[in-house]
This record gives sequence, C-alpha cells and structure tokens, in this order.
Amino acid sequence: MEKIKTIIHEEPVLKGPILIEGLPGVGNVGKLAAEHLLDQLKAKKFADIYSAYFPPQVIVDEDGVTKLVNNELYYSQADGKHPDLIILIGDYQGLTPEGQYDLSDHVLQLCQKYGVDTIFTLGGYGVGKMVEQPRVLGAATTKELVDDMKTKGVIFSKGEPGSGIVGASGLLLGLGKVYGIKAVCLMGETSGYFVDPKGAEAVLRILAAILNVEIDFSELVSKAEQIDLITSKLKEIESPVEPRKEDLGYIG
Amino acid sequence: MEKIKTIIHEEPVLKGPILIEGLPGVGNVGKLAAEHLLDQLKAKKFADIYSAYFPPQVIVDEDGVTKLVNNELYYSQADGKHPDLIILIGDYQGLTPEGQYDLSDHVLQLCQKYGVDTIFTLGGYGVGKMVEQPRVLGAATTKELVDDMKTKGVIFSKGEPGSGIVGASGLLLGLGKVYGIKAVCLMGETSGYFVDPKGAEAVLRILAAILNVEIDFSELVSKAEQIDLITSKLKEIESPVEPRKEDLGYIG
Amino acid sequence: MEKIKTIIHEEPVLKGPILIEGLPGVGNVGKLAAEHLLDQLKAKKFADIYSAYFPPQVIVDEDGVTKLVNNELYYSQADGKHPDLIILIGDYQGLTPEGQYDLSDHVLQLCQKYGVDTIFTLGGYGVGKMVEQPRVLGAATTKELVDDMKTKGVIFSKGEPGSGIVGASGLLLGLGKVYGIKAVCLMGETSGYFVDPKGAEAVLRILAAILNVEIDFSELVSKAEQIDLITSKLKEIESPVEPRKEDLGYIG
Amino acid sequence: MEKIKTIIHEEPVLKGPILIEGLPGVGNVGKLAAEHLLDQLKAKKFADIYSAYFPPQVIVDEDGVTKLVNNELYYSQADGKHPDLIILIGDYQGLTPEGQYDLSDHVLQLCQKYGVDTIFTLGGYGVGKMVEQPRVLGAATTKELVDDMKTKGVIFSKGEPGSGIVGASGLLLGLGKVYGIKAVCLMGETSGYFVDPKGAEAVLRILAAILNVEIDFSELVSKAEQIDLITSKLKEIESPVEPRKEDLGYIG
Repeated sequence: MEKIKTIIHEEPVLKGPILIEGLPGVGNVGKLAAEHLLDQLKAKKFADIYSAYFPPQVIVDEDGVTKLVNNELYYSQADGKHPDLIILIGDYQGLTPEGQYDLSDHVLQLCQKYGVDTIFTLGGYGVGKMVEQPRVLGAATTKELVDDMKTKGVIFSKGEPGSGIVGASGLLLGLGKVYGIKAVCLMGETSGYFVDPKGAEAVLRILAAILNVEIDFSELVSKAEQIDLITSKLKEIESPVEPRKEDLGYIG
Repeated sequence: MEKIKTIIHEEPVLKGPILIEGLPGVGNVGKLAAEHLLDQLKAKKFADIYSAYFPPQVIVDEDGVTKLVNNELYYSQADGKHPDLIILIGDYQGLTPEGQYDLSDHVLQLCQKYGVDTIFTLGGYGVGKMVEQPRVLGAATTKELVDDMKTKGVIFSKGEPGSGIVGASGLLLGLGKVYGIKAVCLMGETSGYFVDPKGAEAVLRILAAILNVEIDFSELVSKAEQIDLITSKLKEIESPVEPRKEDLGYIG
Repeated sequence: MEKIKTIIHEEPVLKGPILIEGLPGVGNVGKLAAEHLLDQLKAKKFADIYSAYFPPQVIVDEDGVTKLVNNELYYSQADGKHPDLIILIGDYQGLTPEGQYDLSDHVLQLCQKYGVDTIFTLGGYGVGKMVEQPRVLGAATTKELVDDMKTKGVIFSKGEPGSGIVGASGLLLGLGKVYGIKAVCLMGETSGYFVDPKGAEAVLRILAAILNVEIDFSELVSKAEQIDLITSKLKEIESPVEPRKEDLGYIG
Repeated sequence: MEKIKTIIHEEPVLKGPILIEGLPGVGNVGKLAAEHLLDQLKAKKFADIYSAYFPPQVIVDEDGVTKLVNNELYYSQADGKHPDLIILIGDYQGLTPEGQYDLSDHVLQLCQKYGVDTIFTLGGYGVGKMVEQPRVLGAATTKELVDDMKTKGVIFSKGEPGSGIVGASGLLLGLGKVYGIKAVCLMGETSGYFVDPKGAEAVLRILAAILNVEIDFSELVSKAEQIDLITSKLKEIESPVEPRKEDLGYIG
C-alpha cells in the first residue's frame, strides 16, 4: 500500500490560508491548543490522512465503533476578522524519522495545493519543572518573521530550545523553508510531565491575537484546574509535611 | 523480492464469503479459536502468504521437514447452514508497523477479489488477572453492526478496550472501513499471561452462533483444563499456605 | 543505491553445482566449516555481494588496505570425485528481517542462474553447554532428502531445533522450497558461547562424505585445541577447587 | 519524498578536486578538523544535502531562525599551492545502516560529477584513555596509497583499528573502491569521552602538509586548552588527593 493515503471529503475554497499544526508532543500543548481553536471556530473536517508510519491501531469510540488512527485537516473560512485557516490535528506523529519527513513533506504538498501563506506549528517546550506563568517561545524560518513575532509577545531567547525542535513542529519549518513557505513555531513552556492545558492556553492566546480570532478559554482553564488539583495532590503524597519553598515547583 | 508473496494453490468458488482472522496475539485467543474452527469445518488451505515482514525463520516439523513461516488462507463452502467462509491463520503477524499495514492491506485486496461480505477478527482482551468466565467484547466498523452484535451476546463496554485494538485484528477493521468492507472484532477476555483456550472457546461460541456452525468444543475444553492445572500448580508454588480469597484471581 | 549489488568477476562454467552456505551464526560453526572447505579445495572467488543490509563498515587488513564488508561466492569445479561446488561465505548476514529475506532471495536467483541442484546450509545448534562429541542435526525441504541424509549420519531429532532455524541457513531452505530448489541444513552442536571449530569439524566431516571431498582437518583440530585450552583455563578461574563432576560441562 | 535531496546553489568549476569529509563521529575529530580547514580556506558553500535519514529536527540559531539539519558541501579553488578542494561537513550522519550506505553512495555520485580525484575522510580513533600526543592512524583503498601516506607521517599499525571503520569515514573508502575512486581515512587518536580539538589538530596538521595548505591552528589549540581545563577539573573532583601516576591518563 502507499505509505500515506489522504482521503479528501470536500475541497474547501480558501484564499492564502494559514495552516495551524497541533499534533501530539511534549505536554500535548500543541494538540490541546489546536483542538480548542478548532472547537471554538467550529472548523469543518475536509480530509483524513492515514499512514503506515502511524501505529497499526484503531481507536474505539463510546459506541464501540472503530476509527483507524490518523491525522485530520479542518478548515475555517475567513469571517472578516481572521483569515482562512486550515488546522492539522491527529492521534499520532510518524513513528520513524523517515515517516516524520514523509508526512511533513506530504502536508507541505497539500499546503502548496491550497496556497497556504504561512504555517504556525504549536508545541510544548519541556523545562522539567512546574511552570506557573508559561512563556511562549518562538522560532521562525526568517529573521523578518522573528521580528514580527516579537511584536506579538513571542519570546525569542538565545539557546532556547538548545536542542532544536524535533518532530512535525520542527520539520514543517525546516522543510517549509526548502519549499519556500514561511513558518513559525510557537512553544508553550510546560513541565513535560503532564498533559498541560495551561501551556496550551498560553500558546493559543498569542496565536488568537495574531490571527484575530476570539476565543473562549473557559474550557482550557477548567482542564488546567483539574490538572493542578491532581498535581497538588501528588505533591501532598510525596511530601506530606512542610514542603520546603524551593522544592515546591519541582516534581520527581 | 516483493515484500509480500501470496501463492494461490486453488481458486475457490465462493459467494460473498465471511473472512475470519485468527493470527497470534494476546493469549493466542484468536489463533486458537480460528484454528479450532478450521479443524471442525475441515476447511481446505488454498493460499500461502509469505512476507519479508515476518521473521527470517523456518519451522521444522516432526519429520525434519522445513516450512517457511507464513500466513495461510483456508476456505469452507456453505453447507446450507453456514455461509461460505475464508479463514486466515498464521505463525506471525508483521514485525513492524509498516509490515502490519502492508499485510492487512494485502488481505483486504484478497477480500475484494473474493467478494468478502464481512470480516470477523478474533483476539484476546488482556485484563491482567485470571478470568473464570471470560466475556466477549466487541468493536465494529459501523453503529448498525454494533447493534446487531449486541443481539448475539457480544458485549460493548465504554472504555474497553481503552487503548484501542492493535495489530491485524484492529487494522482489518480500520483499513476495512477505508475499503468499505464491514468488519467486527471479537475479543475474548484473557489474563494475557498464558495461551488461553478458555478465552478462545468463549469467542468461538459467539462466532459459531453468528455463523450458524456446529462446533465440538471438547478439544478446546481439554486444553483449557491442562492450562488450569498448570496455573493452579504455579499458584501453590507461589503461595503454599492459606492463600487469601481476594488474591486468588491474580498472578504476579 | 540498490540495496544489494553483486559484482561478478568471472562467469564460472558449472554443471548442476551444489551451493554450500557458511555465513556467521551460532558459534560461527557454518562460517568456519565453509571457509575450511574453501581453503582445502583452493576454491576461486568469482563474485562479491555488497549490500546496504550489512553494517556500514570497512575492514582494514594487515597492510592498512580497506575492504567493504560483504558476502563472497567461490567455485570449485568437479574433479571426478566431487561435483561442481559454489561456496557462499561472508562477514555478516543481513541486519534486518527484510534484509535477510532480500539477501536470501538474491542468492536463490543466483542459484537459478547457475543451475544449482541442491543447497547445503551450514550452521551451529546452540545447546547452552559444552559439547564433547557434537552431533550434526539436520533439516531439509523434503521427506526424501531427510531420509537420504539419515543414511549419511545426519541426525533428525523431533523437537530439535524446537525454535526453528533463523537466518540465512533457514531462509535458503524456506525460500528455496518456494523456488523449487531442494535444500538441507546441517547444524553442528555447539555451546554457543565461543567460536567453535569442533562443531565446524563435525559438520564438515558429514558434508565431505556427502560431497566426496577429501579434507585435511588438522587446522580445524588445532583451532579446536586452542579453544579447549582457553575454556579449560576459564573453568579453573571460575571454580578453582574440586569442581563437581556434573557441573563440568557447563559454563556461566 | 526522495530520501536524499541535494540543493546545489552554485556549480563550482573544479579540476580533479580532492574531497575532504568531516562528519560527526568519535570525539568529533573529523568534524572539527574539516570545519577548521573550511574556515581557514574561507571555503564557499555550494550545496545543501537534506535527508529523511537524518533526525526530523531543526536547529535554531541565535536569532531564532531555524535550519533543517543537513550535510553541506563547500569548495575552495586551487591557489597555486593546494589543489581544488571540496569539503563535506554536517550536523549528522545517516541514522540507519541503509541511510549510511545511501548517503555515502550519493556523495560518491557527486564525486563522479565533479571529477573528484582522491577522497580524504577524517575521523577519531577512540582509545578509551586520555591521549597527550595523538597519533594519526590511516587506512586506504590501495597498497600504493598506504605506502604514499606512510611517507607523510601517517601511521599504519597492524590491528588498529581492529574493529574496522564504521560510518561515512569507512563507507566512502569501501564504496569508493567499488566506484574506482581512491580514498584515504585519517584517524586522530582520541579518548572518545570528549569533543577533542587536539585530535583534530593532529589530523589537520598531516592533511595540511599533504594538501600544501597553510593553517593557523591557534583557534583549535585554544579550544583544546579549554577541554584540557575541564578534564583536569573533572580529575580533581574524582580523585582529590594524590592521584597515582599510572591512573592519570584514564577517566572513568
């Protein structure tokens, strides 16, 4: 079989759309942010991407109906405020380096087909400790984009991330540059220990301002509170008496 | 060489056959069930599937004669009660995710060739403890199939299996849906620690009723008793004196 | 690049040759046996097989000159006693299952080209303890070959090897059967802990009788004595005082 | 996508150039040497090699601008003293054996295109202990090259390196020989525990003499002093009092 098979259910009419990528990764920050954006915009699914680079697995829904793991493309047409948007979410990233390259290349070919103007990839920046006020770090394909993003509150900090950006959030920039498509990666600080709706909120607040989208964050805030509750209980179990101030921010 | 090479020894004449898949997996529940069905129906082998996705290995039989590890297709023609059947068994599943996808895709192409109407994949659902009365859980490609299976005694339980279905038993549903072939997965509860004829019996009783096949279960029952004997001896060794009631069901 | 690239230096004129395979494996029994046969027959190299399935590595000889790791084909023409022979030796087997299949398939295509009549694959049968008088176990593609080999002193023992035969020594039989080429695997018992010239000698004595080749075994015997010396010293270190009789055969 | 994609920015006019390879490896000796050579010659980049065999990763520079990990080709035209040179450096080697073969084959095709006369691959020879005066060991595709290199101070020592040469520094010789391109590997002794500018300096001094290039080594010497400072501090921490003379050379 083909390594990647995309089934397009509907050909959306879009004008220079922005692609937003939010696949699973550190703290699932990108995935949470992109899915919340998609919900808020009531974006419509137009394509399923299946691939032998994903695990050989189906997911079973509440009714007992199966779905082959995949990536999905949604669109939301311009509403006078925000531009046309394509949103890429999914259950998995490619399992191997070759799969990662092939899948990102495939998405970039779809970007060319739909005339994508700019790509925003969303991800988490794992710092190994709990974060109260997550910063949103950035990287971009050109110096001009970096300067532009600085004006939007994105932080560009020398040596962060020191190890580069791995996976789809990095490759869409790296290969995008080869394709001549400009792209920005927004990374929300996260401990990396938990699914992190707080990091997702931080990333999405910046992105919403850039795209001029109005977002109701209450659901993400509520999820973040649930995670906070769980992590504070874990802290109690680990150090029941008088935790020292300087240790409070760290787990494990 | 081609990654998958199927040698067809005979072209069976079949009318809308049902495909039954029983490859190795958790507790070898699916494999045991499919092989028992095949024996009972005196089904006839018509194809060998060899593949570079399987281990590079031959099996040596009692006479010293070698057989390259493979998957095999058998058929059993309709007898007025049950419909035409194709049964897929084998020594191994594909070793890599790509191999899994390619092999399942290959089987689905054979399904199209023979006009397969419905697929039943058989597997084990590992619960991590000994099971006295294994339930048979299900998943299916459509809501209609789920509803139909419920009337046959298949259990659909929210959140089970929570992690989805991995391997051929899942992929034949996932890719089958893309091919437009309806499919059901039947999963017999099993500890997952042993080859489990009891789980296989449970799955096969449900399947036999659905297919209207008469099965003599005495051989499976006898195998199950042997396994019970071994596991009860293991329990004695592990806790020789007064095992507490609530621990009896668990091993390890 | 092509995954396998064979460079043929000379096209030998052969009539229904026998292929002998001796690649690295358990105790390097097959490799030692094939290389000794090759030396004794003064067989001539006629082809180099390079492959991306081997490690990305060169070997440096005593002069400092490099050789890309490979497999090699030698031939020895019939001398009135033994038939035409092709001998396959090498530095490595394929690193992945797919590589193993592809390389064995490639060798079988060369077998067809040169009209190979029968294949003998040579290997070790690891028994996990020291062996004084190694037996030579066999497996073959047909019952007739098994019966024939029994008359030559090859032992066919039910359940040995229980786990089948893995690698080129197995695949050349397994795929050979698909190609319609008859093949025999000869396995010399070996501890599996050391390179084992004694196991190689046992295999080669049987093979030499089958092929009607005269072999001077003194070099293999001398190598075996060196290994015996090393292993007996290791035993002294591990149990300096009064080793119990029943433990003597075991190491580790 | 293609597994390897080379983007050529400029077609240099070169006459029988020498290719120098310095990719990451033991002690990064080859990479450091090649990069220093490139700086000294003010060599000009003319091609980028991207590949799905590299990690799916972008590197972020000080400005926040991303670069897809790659290999790069530079050239330096003959200046009356040294010949035309092509220098190959990069962030990574291929991650898999197949990737290694494919990438080296690709480089050799580029060598053929540009009429490369000889290849020098640069690497480290890990000896597992600190080295005060690193020797430069060699290996070559022909006996003539070995003899020639001996006159340049390259050491050819039987049994070193005993395990052969792994990766691009080996493959360019191994596959180069198949292509009919002569090639030499220069290996600077190194502990293998640290990035080692001292080993790089040793290799580059030999290479500079061979190529008739004048090199200012002060930067490499300065880097080596920094590493010496760090390692001597580590030694103090590990054995604060009276380290015995014979242990001083070893770490770990």
